[in-house]
Amino acid sequence: MSTGIPVGLVGVTGYTGMELARILSGHDAMNLVRVTSRAEAGKKLSEIYPFMTGLELGELAITAPDVDDLAKSCKLVFLAVPHKTAMDIGGKLYDKGVKVVDLSADFRIRDRATYEEWYKVDHTREDLLPKAVYGLPEFYRDQIKTASLVANPGCYPTSSIIGLTPALSQKLIDTTDIVIDSKSGATGAGRKAVVGSLFCEVSDSFKAYGLGKHRHTPEIEQELSVVADENITVSFNTHLLPINRGILSTIYTKLRANVTAEDVRTVYEKAYGSEKWIRVLPEGMLPETRWVRGTMFCDVGLVVDPRTGRLIIVTAIDNVCRGASGQAVANANLMMGLAEGHGLNLAPLMP
Amino acid sequence: MSTGIPVGLVGVTGYTGMELARILSGHDAMNLVRVTSRAEAGKKLSEIYPFMTGLELGELAITAPDVDDLAKSCKLVFLAVPHKTAMDIGGKLYDKGVKVVDLSADFRIRDRATYEEWYKVDHTREDLLPKAVYGLPEFYRDQIKTASLVANPGCYPTSSIIGLTPALSQKLIDTTDIVIDSKSGATGAGRKAVVGSLFCEVSDSFKAYGLGKHRHTPEIEQELSVVADENITVSFNTHLLPINRGILSTIYTKLRANVTAEDVRTVYEKAYGSEKWIRVLPEGMLPETRWVRGTMFCDVGLVVDPRTGRLIIVTAIDNVCRGASGQAVANANLMMGLAEGHGLNLAPLMP
Amino acid sequence: MSTGIPVGLVGVTGYTGMELARILSGHDAMNLVRVTSRAEAGKKLSEIYPFMTGLELGELAITAPDVDDLAKSCKLVFLAVPHKTAMDIGGKLYDKGVKVVDLSADFRIRDRATYEEWYKVDHTREDLLPKAVYGLPEFYRDQIKTASLVANPGCYPTSSIIGLTPALSQKLIDTTDIVIDSKSGATGAGRKAVVGSLFCEVSDSFKAYGLGKHRHTPEIEQELSVVADENITVSFNTHLLPINRGILSTIYTKLRANVTAEDVRTVYEKAYGSEKWIRVLPEGMLPETRWVRGTMFCDVGLVVDPRTGRLIIVTAIDNVCRGASGQAVANANLMMGLAEGHGLNLAPLMP
Amino acid sequence: MSTGIPVGLVGVTGYTGMELARILSGHDAMNLVRVTSRAEAGKKLSEIYPFMTGLELGELAITAPDVDDLAKSCKLVFLAVPHKTAMDIGGKLYDKGVKVVDLSADFRIRDRATYEEWYKVDHTREDLLPKAVYGLPEFYRDQIKTASLVANPGCYPTSSIIGLTPALSQKLIDTTDIVIDSKSGATGAGRKAVVGSLFCEVSDSFKAYGLGKHRHTPEIEQELSVVADENITVSFNTHLLPINRGILSTIYTKLRANVTAEDVRTVYEKAYGSEKWIRVLPEGMLPETRWVRGTMFCDVGLVVDPRTGRLIIVTAIDNVCRGASGQAVANANLMMGLAEGHGLNLAPLMP
Repeated sequence: MSTGIPVGLVGVTGYTGMELARILSGHDAMNLVRVTSRAEAGKKLSEIYPFMTGLELGELAITAPDVDDLAKSCKLVFLAVPHKTAMDIGGKLYDKGVKVVDLSADFRIRDRATYEEWYKVDHTREDLLPKAVYGLPEFYRDQIKTASLVANPGCYPTSSIIGLTPALSQKLIDTTDIVIDSKSGATGAGRKAVVGSLFCEVSDSFKAYGLGKHRHTPEIEQELSVVADENITVSFNTHLLPINRGILSTIYTKLRANVTAEDVRTVYEKAYGSEKWIRVLPEGMLPETRWVRGTMFCDVGLVVDPRTGRLIIVTAIDNVCRGASGQAVANANLMMGLAEGHGLNLAPLMP
Repeated sequence: MSTGIPVGLVGVTGYTGMELARILSGHDAMNLVRVTSRAEAGKKLSEIYPFMTGLELGELAITAPDVDDLAKSCKLVFLAVPHKTAMDIGGKLYDKGVKVVDLSADFRIRDRATYEEWYKVDHTREDLLPKAVYGLPEFYRDQIKTASLVANPGCYPTSSIIGLTPALSQKLIDTTDIVIDSKSGATGAGRKAVVGSLFCEVSDSFKAYGLGKHRHTPEIEQELSVVADENITVSFNTHLLPINRGILSTIYTKLRANVTAEDVRTVYEKAYGSEKWIRVLPEGMLPETRWVRGTMFCDVGLVVDPRTGRLIIVTAIDNVCRGASGQAVANANLMMGLAEGHGLNLAPLMP
Repeated sequence: MSTGIPVGLVGVTGYTGMELARILSGHDAMNLVRVTSRAEAGKKLSEIYPFMTGLELGELAITAPDVDDLAKSCKLVFLAVPHKTAMDIGGKLYDKGVKVVDLSADFRIRDRATYEEWYKVDHTREDLLPKAVYGLPEFYRDQIKTASLVANPGCYPTSSIIGLTPALSQKLIDTTDIVIDSKSGATGAGRKAVVGSLFCEVSDSFKAYGLGKHRHTPEIEQELSVVADENITVSFNTHLLPINRGILSTIYTKLRANVTAEDVRTVYEKAYGSEKWIRVLPEGMLPETRWVRGTMFCDVGLVVDPRTGRLIIVTAIDNVCRGASGQAVANANLMMGLAEGHGLNLAPLMP
Repeated sequence: MSTGIPVGLVGVTGYTGMELARILSGHDAMNLVRVTSRAEAGKKLSEIYPFMTGLELGELAITAPDVDDLAKSCKLVFLAVPHKTAMDIGGKLYDKGVKVVDLSADFRIRDRATYEEWYKVDHTREDLLPKAVYGLPEFYRDQIKTASLVANPGCYPTSSIIGLTPALSQKLIDTTDIVIDSKSGATGAGRKAVVGSLFCEVSDSFKAYGLGKHRHTPEIEQELSVVADENITVSFNTHLLPINRGILSTIYTKLRANVTAEDVRTVYEKAYGSEKWIRVLPEGMLPETRWVRGTMFCDVGLVVDPRTGRLIIVTAIDNVCRGASGQAVANANLMMGLAEGHGLNLAPLMP
């Protein structure tokens, strides 16, 4: 591991930090040399990640975040800290010439006012917004390769944008009647100690939350508007599943006149046929979150319902891997000149 | 218990049979005197329901189903057997003057052809279709009181119809653009030994199934068409949750012009304000399946999304109690002249 | 409900408070008139227990705890607050002549020094220790009836003491070689917002904790020593299950010479044959936590292993109902002259 | 992959078959060229393992098991079929000079009579019993390297033997008083369609089963007797956890006089310090099944309880990976001259 590209991770206490450590522990061309946390500085990584005991990476010492030290030690830094904090530290690292993959929302929204409206904080690094590349490899591969700052997509947007892009870009569907019904596992709520995330509050139950108001909405609309070449508004709605990992989005659209089920399948297979991580499932098969557990796959199921003239698109991803840390590594691979899938050839853990 | 109305249960091996036994064990005006199962005849009920050991009802002997014996012993019989079987035995019991609550789909669809198209079997008791009353107490209370045959609603339809009825009857929404995204716990799949229902296939996962094709579709459309006074077609879509009990339906509709969030709330509170089991949740609160666990409640959450002009209705029920056996007991109460809620004053088991 | 005995509940925010509310909402001889919480005072109960919306009890206003007010309003008060706090408020209520059922550990240990050693706090009401009755109804029924202060047993001790008492009192087993391997659902950890209790930390996992050091140890040893009429030391060890409710204890003992499997069964059936809530399961059947979910049952399975000369006793209870709030109500029933099982005739929620 | 050692898998429909496919899909020195199943012959692997869609291995065609074809195509064959079937096909492959790793119990028990007593079938290949090597790499590494037939250990025995070996070999504990309380995830019950393994029968519940009678008992006793150099009898007892993967065993022993906690730790650290997959956890830390999910790790926690003079050993493994298919690959690696850990450097999937 010692000869890989030196990289850092700011923010080790959450689930995305854990997942980055898991992935990088098996990545032979990147070398995680700094992991930072104000609260846990001084400990070995395995003290807060007991599951990494005995792995080489578990021996790494946690330090307090220090931009100078990070800049000196790392060629690229992953930010797994909350929005607003990310903008600050990410901006400083950028200024010092360190490549940054930001897992927060701070550089995802190109329009400052939209960001500020949905996130309720001031954006202090508007100068970087035009430099940041949205890190969905299948759509922005070339820009990512030369980017210094990548805004790693949100988990829900990853599942939604992959699901809708071919239908919108090929004009298969009515652009004014899109409903996204998303369901996420509990890692999506993060690792904060709050009553609502306790086992006994989530287990053996299911709920909707944030209907019409989730902060991932403008991110989804921004990207779909690019694809459709018109302003897209979606009804985006989220639910909490009693599972650890996984997002399944059921996307309801209306087919344009004369578009057939065969057309739909042809468009999706053409769009994604050469993409190793997007699996357009055969007719009659629908995604299950377990089939993508621990991986970069985004599975796509397609149903044309002749009774209602609808195209229903179902996508499934692992929100922690594909929807966050794995995608961050793919972006880092591209930014550092490695193969996009380096260290990410992961088979699903089943069951 | 011995002085209650004698009732019978045909089909004890499934989850709805179990739930009926649970409810009737605490019902002091009905006396379960016959429980039948061809496969388990000769055993005591507690031998197949170990959880009923020590309860009086656990001592009841299971017999093979025998229409004459049931007719002689019972004033009312619950049918917890698959469709087609129910039609046959239910018809015979009806002919002998026994009141019947049928938990299968056999008498729910008033139009024979529609039934046969969706269920792929012949209906051999078309004569009874006009006599069967659809057993949603809030809507058919008076007819149920005098009915001899009640078609107990499906679980998904219960959650869907309660959710949509006020909006449709008061013309709040576009009738041509309704999407129901339903998620059900695994009891909904029954107690059949199939690989797809194994713990390791369902746990820590989530999937969509039967999109646009679920057999509960015509039942939902039938009842909504009555309410709206026009033919309603819905996009009805189902998912499997890794929980035991509970259905949560997220229902997407488009508000008609000039209908406000306040109008919506007023309509729903008026429609359900006097219904003890339908709880229209306060503004900002959305249902969780655990809040209705083990009960007759149907919780209704209302969200008006001004960005998209949509009314999103979220309902939650316990599919086994409200969506099946508890509702069956409510119907039986009405049919036998008891208070609708007799023995059904159940508080949720939380957590 | 309005004519029942007025009772109060101090501490509404935890799972035992919730469960008391659930049980009392169906109890027609007690009337919950005060619910207190410093943090939640001013709200209606249904605001913090949304699942009680629409139930009469949900309308009750939460007040700040006030001993004078409680003493004036209530004949009996349940304490669902942490140890040390309970001792203080319970002592004051006792002094004012209010009957108290304390769900904390404060009055369970008769020996002050032992209490202080295990709980690491001073006991400030040693005067009440001899007055407190240990609230296991099957063993202390008569004393409970006349008690003013009942120490409601711990959840693990309930499962352990019921399991071992017949074997010890009838000298079936070696008293020096007892291992209790207990597994508890996550409600046992309470409703505190801590990372270790988050869904994603507990779900799809299992762990041991506190081996040999759990605070319920001296409580178990105290009661078993009474039964055995000698000092009993046990190896008591706990584990965390990814379930909401339930404790299953597997208890390993060594049979004395010449004691047969038949002897064991005879002793247990004689000991518990007339107890409505203790179900000695038939030969070959072992308890499952779901069979007792939401109930007062303690199921007991017995295995004699001739290869190793061991008697293995397996018990299962619902830790929240039988192991806490349900048992508290049984004790209150006895203290107030009601039938022990009043309002507690609960059938298991299965599944 | 095409240049690796050609290997085969007999029996693809169960969880161990799935796990082998997962592991081999990331193993660059073995090439899975045959997968067989009488029931599924003719399908592509991805048709029965939808999660392998898009992976190269998913394209492999399933064939009916044919010894001649296997012998011609494969240098080594994994048997993931039930006992008795394994003995037959494994024997034939051995006779043809194919190396065999048998995941069933057929060649684990060296004494034919003991095998037949516990498994209730005749052993028809007694001739192979002395040739089979028990495949616990840490203990039989050298023999495995030259073996033609490896009996892959059972999941429970793996967790038990690793836990007890240092204590027994170094005479730390009383050899006559050993209790193993094991808890396994539901994959351990296999992928058979039986009611007892349904989601709704296992979820949110916990039970003991087969106390004192589990078939893994003689396997554990055989290996411990070798280690202790005397006949060891253990009380081995199993429970079913509502999780997919993982076994946690809590092992109760009595320390010999004068053995200290320090002695215990020294012995275990010496025994396992150089073993990459056995992690003796630091003082005060106890295993959790999630920490080993998807990996070869066996975590070992040690507790000396001075009150009772006991050493409690807690071990955790992933029953599907370390307890079956991963261990099978480690054995195959050794048999084929590869590094033991080739393709098995797996980090835990957390959470």
